[in-house]
Amino acid sequence: MNTTPVAVAMLGVGRIGKMHATLVARSVPETRLVAVADAFAATATDVGAELGVPALTVAEVLALPEVEAVGVCTTTATHVDTIIAAAEAGKAIMCEKPISNDIADVDRALAAVKANGVKFMVGFNRRFDPSHAAVQKAVMNGDIGQVEIVRVTSRDPEPPPMSYVAGSGGLFLDMMVHDFDMAPFVVGSPVVSVYAQGAVRVDPGFAEHGDIDTAVVMMTHADGTLSTIDNSRRAVYGYDQRVEAFGSLGMVQSDNVRLNTSTITGAHGTVAQPLENWFIGRYQEAYRVEWAAFANYVRGDGPSPVPGDEARLPLVIAAAANLSMAENRPVTIAEMEQRLAKA
Amino acid sequence: MNTTPVAVAMLGVGRIGKMHATLVARSVPETRLVAVADAFAATATDVGAELGVPALTVAEVLALPEVEAVGVCTTTATHVDTIIAAAEAGKAIMCEKPISNDIADVDRALAAVKANGVKFMVGFNRRFDPSHAAVQKAVMNGDIGQVEIVRVTSRDPEPPPMSYVAGSGGLFLDMMVHDFDMAPFVVGSPVVSVYAQGAVRVDPGFAEHGDIDTAVVMMTHADGTLSTIDNSRRAVYGYDQRVEAFGSLGMVQSDNVRLNTSTITGAHGTVAQPLENWFIGRYQEAYRVEWAAFANYVRGDGPSPVPGDEARLPLVIAAAANLSMAENRPVTIAEMEQRLAKA
Amino acid sequence: MNTTPVAVAMLGVGRIGKMHATLVARSVPETRLVAVADAFAATATDVGAELGVPALTVAEVLALPEVEAVGVCTTTATHVDTIIAAAEAGKAIMCEKPISNDIADVDRALAAVKANGVKFMVGFNRRFDPSHAAVQKAVMNGDIGQVEIVRVTSRDPEPPPMSYVAGSGGLFLDMMVHDFDMAPFVVGSPVVSVYAQGAVRVDPGFAEHGDIDTAVVMMTHADGTLSTIDNSRRAVYGYDQRVEAFGSLGMVQSDNVRLNTSTITGAHGTVAQPLENWFIGRYQEAYRVEWAAFANYVRGDGPSPVPGDEARLPLVIAAAANLSMAENRPVTIAEMEQRLAKA
Amino acid sequence: MNTTPVAVAMLGVGRIGKMHATLVARSVPETRLVAVADAFAATATDVGAELGVPALTVAEVLALPEVEAVGVCTTTATHVDTIIAAAEAGKAIMCEKPISNDIADVDRALAAVKANGVKFMVGFNRRFDPSHAAVQKAVMNGDIGQVEIVRVTSRDPEPPPMSYVAGSGGLFLDMMVHDFDMAPFVVGSPVVSVYAQGAVRVDPGFAEHGDIDTAVVMMTHADGTLSTIDNSRRAVYGYDQRVEAFGSLGMVQSDNVRLNTSTITGAHGTVAQPLENWFIGRYQEAYRVEWAAFANYVRGDGPSPVPGDEARLPLVIAAAANLSMAENRPVTIAEMEQRLAKA
Repeated sequence: MNTTPVAVAMLGVGRIGKMHATLVARSVPETRLVAVADAFAATATDVGAELGVPALTVAEVLALPEVEAVGVCTTTATHVDTIIAAAEAGKAIMCEKPISNDIADVDRALAAVKANGVKFMVGFNRRFDPSHAAVQKAVMNGDIGQVEIVRVTSRDPEPPPMSYVAGSGGLFLDMMVHDFDMAPFVVGSPVVSVYAQGAVRVDPGFAEHGDIDTAVVMMTHADGTLSTIDNSRRAVYGYDQRVEAFGSLGMVQSDNVRLNTSTITGAHGTVAQPLENWFIGRYQEAYRVEWAAFANYVRGDGPSPVPGDEARLPLVIAAAANLSMAENRPVTIAEMEQRLAKA
Repeated sequence: MNTTPVAVAMLGVGRIGKMHATLVARSVPETRLVAVADAFAATATDVGAELGVPALTVAEVLALPEVEAVGVCTTTATHVDTIIAAAEAGKAIMCEKPISNDIADVDRALAAVKANGVKFMVGFNRRFDPSHAAVQKAVMNGDIGQVEIVRVTSRDPEPPPMSYVAGSGGLFLDMMVHDFDMAPFVVGSPVVSVYAQGAVRVDPGFAEHGDIDTAVVMMTHADGTLSTIDNSRRAVYGYDQRVEAFGSLGMVQSDNVRLNTSTITGAHGTVAQPLENWFIGRYQEAYRVEWAAFANYVRGDGPSPVPGDEARLPLVIAAAANLSMAENRPVTIAEMEQRLAKA
Repeated sequence: MNTTPVAVAMLGVGRIGKMHATLVARSVPETRLVAVADAFAATATDVGAELGVPALTVAEVLALPEVEAVGVCTTTATHVDTIIAAAEAGKAIMCEKPISNDIADVDRALAAVKANGVKFMVGFNRRFDPSHAAVQKAVMNGDIGQVEIVRVTSRDPEPPPMSYVAGSGGLFLDMMVHDFDMAPFVVGSPVVSVYAQGAVRVDPGFAEHGDIDTAVVMMTHADGTLSTIDNSRRAVYGYDQRVEAFGSLGMVQSDNVRLNTSTITGAHGTVAQPLENWFIGRYQEAYRVEWAAFANYVRGDGPSPVPGDEARLPLVIAAAANLSMAENRPVTIAEMEQRLAKA
Repeated sequence: MNTTPVAVAMLGVGRIGKMHATLVARSVPETRLVAVADAFAATATDVGAELGVPALTVAEVLALPEVEAVGVCTTTATHVDTIIAAAEAGKAIMCEKPISNDIADVDRALAAVKANGVKFMVGFNRRFDPSHAAVQKAVMNGDIGQVEIVRVTSRDPEPPPMSYVAGSGGLFLDMMVHDFDMAPFVVGSPVVSVYAQGAVRVDPGFAEHGDIDTAVVMMTHADGTLSTIDNSRRAVYGYDQRVEAFGSLGMVQSDNVRLNTSTITGAHGTVAQPLENWFIGRYQEAYRVEWAAFANYVRGDGPSPVPGDEARLPLVIAAAANLSMAENRPVTIAEMEQRLAKA
């Protein structure tokens, strides 16, 4: 196998794109950064200078033969067109989640990927986190026997700005979509039915945008497993990310990550350190592993670590959750797919 | 206040009644045991001999002026008649949960309690467990601000015998009823709606009795809190009992109790001791506190620690859960009460 | 084997004697309480009334044929004479630690025990604590291979009154004596050499009594294991009691016991409950197990759970520690025994 | 303040030097790598190629005006000459510990540093570990009041090869030297006296080299604090690194780092992940923080994060420990310094 680092250009180097570009350039031996692009030229110039690579336009990047792969970290609204252009240019693609909030657009992007035969992976980063991955691996190994109950907790430290909420697609698409990917990934069986409840408890501004800030979802899986997810836009104690799988032989859990291992014990008890406070710190290692997995995929013969069709399903579950909450009834994925097909 | 120990007679001294009798006799300074009774005379005789008190019939116990209070630990089917007889005899009553699996019977028992003006408490023991009680107290103190999400996990170490399952009333009434009491107790707000899913994953025998062995329930509370409960009849690792409340200022959790605090660290990680394996060990301290609370209630002027009307509600929620699962839709408590009123 | 409960009379029912009497009477099925005695007649009368047994004099107790065993919980100064009298009366003896602070007196008591052929056990309660016992058992099972390093931490929540300090015999005899028993118990090999350092950091009053309040001791064992003990008279966070054994295959540790398992997580971290605050709460279960072990010993053919000669050794180690600190040099147990033999 | 990254050349790029070079090049924004050198030219060439910098000789590096600072990661035996040459070339110096195993040589190196007025820091990496640093910071903040007892545990996963042991200087100099730095760093008060015991328990090969593989040391500090250190060359469960400080207001502890936060709970208990297995993984973050601290020191006006005189003291303590073990008596630092002055 070719073991030279994969030459990656990063398209979109805002907050998350810059993080990806930095990892590719500095911390993932299996990759190297060759160029950056951004809708804001000044942003591209700054990041390129910092990382020692040229700042180009997307078109220039796609025209460069040296570029083997692109990271798609532009705004969600431009993902699909960028993916299509990159596919047509024959580049391998790592796309930040979600492909799009519009499933018809997702299907258009996936069709282009298929038509051009390029490698494609979606960045559902939590799958690569060592703790959550250990949960999934334990289940796959049979360590807990037959899975019966799964719980996923995801709570953000603080709500995004309302300007972001306005175009976010709502909590189920914007936030819980990660958990809609994680639950079937851990269970090893697809979701068949969803019942969702949401509430506005954190900030009335969410209601003004027709959104919610607190939600709980129950799902049934094809193999009979029952799963629940809970989300909040505000956990004052940090970024709360836990997964628990229970089965016939036991239970496996991933717990939160703290700033360090020190504790102080006094008259009022023992105080452990706060949690990591935001995803870029919490999932730094996950992102590194994700890029290494992408590079192995590009260099090797195996399947995509997160193929397009798997990455599409959380969007369908999110749509089902929205319908369930709107009509206060369980909604099957089959019904949702039919509705989407008709739309 | 009169501080002499409350004179208690235990009616029903099978497994759980004997445990209560022993606690009353030996481990709760606020109570003393004066007599025992049981449908099986030999059982009463043995337990009476062991604890140094006479074995009488229920009628004899109720006729004894010395007896201030009775513990009702007979089989569930006889609870209501025993309560009515004890109420008419003017005895204070501590009744093991549930009062009855039939809500009309529950109402009949509560009417007798009210008509005779006797003190009455139901033994929802988990409320008195130091760890779960600390969760509820933290919520009441405002330590986590406004409650937003609550999770209750209850998993038994192993399924009961099928002979027991046959007459148990089903998982929601027999097992999850504890959690239907715990969730609103911790939230501090009543349940308004229930969505329940159950499955047979542990033993096909449950299906033969029209029962389930694995269940997840989602509830909404009057104050907007969302809660979930999960139950399994078989956790190979012991008696799994956890409560988590999340709110605007943080999170409070009760964790499981292990056999002791020792751990062994080797090449494969650190192994902590197994969990307590059954409720009599796990909740020994809860039962002691429960009896002390009962004695304080008998001697004092305060309200019942678990009044009859509060103890009735979990039964209504359980009925709603059964209906929800049968019809695969959320069911409101209001609808359930209407149905019960018509029945 | 005779399985009727062992008939115990408690000699000395001050704070700790009353606790033992209550356990024997109420919480240890293998024992029953038949009488109490105390130098303060009123104390004996009160405790006897509370526990439903007669308050007698020591002489009356020893004359009662019904009494099979006595608990010796009188003041330390009277232990030896009480043991001798009980031995001569043919009673089995459970003696609170220490037998005496004077080793010559200890030897006198042990001689009387031997001469009269009575059963004898010393109440080194920590050996029976489920967590510390699990450490020792893991070592004996070979779970950590060959033991190499052992650490024992014992810190009291607060210093005793100075009136107590005056007659306590000093930190090594009064407090660390427990750890001088625990270390060889866990290692499974006797102490051969001691190096001790002490300091007055908590209260200058200790210096006025020629005592210390903070101490660290290093010991070598016959099998080559190195052990350390640290003691403080004041841990503001509660009763800190931990044991750690490290060996060729791993490490086993006992951790502290908290009030309950609840935790609160907020912006400043996660707060676990305080530790149990005093030995009567912390070691309640240990004391129960200790009495059950004593009863099994009385009824059976096995060796004493804590024989007199083993209980004598911690006193010799304490004497060696005092000499080591005084002369700032390591002191061997062999040297100490020679000095004691000459004294 | 000049915020451009500090231009560093790495002298010595064997295992640990390569790690430092990689961090400087890729993971510490405050530094950049400009060249590497190594006694083995091929090693330098390979590492230089991998990191995109030239492989030079030490002399060439020191002649380069662009080089602001050097990392000294050559073999210990060449540290002093390298430091002197770098000091004479006017370079800032970050030296891997120890400066030398010979204190006269250390003094010679420090004299050259002083004479040439260059900045100098020794890489006692544990000071920069977030968990251990939090312990020290808590003590300095007064969070535990007056410090009274400190414990440091350091156990390596497996012994080094015997070829390494031969020239290592022995356990106290080679391994415990880290802890001899950590204890006074955490206490905030210098060591005045040492009592050391060592044993060969892991591998008889240590004895053949006049070395030990297991050791416990007790120290007294100028402020009255008592500290203990224990070391083993073989902890089968990984790299065991813990610090505990106890004081008048409480206790602060750093615990080990596990591979991830997942746990599996089964019938035999709950298994947490193994520890990080070696120092390069365990202290990755510490090394990053160390280089950032060095860069801030080079750019700023503050004192050295680990000045030469502080880095010299652990070597004196190690010498005292060797003497203490040889003569089985406590040895004061004052006595040791006198002996060194005479030597």
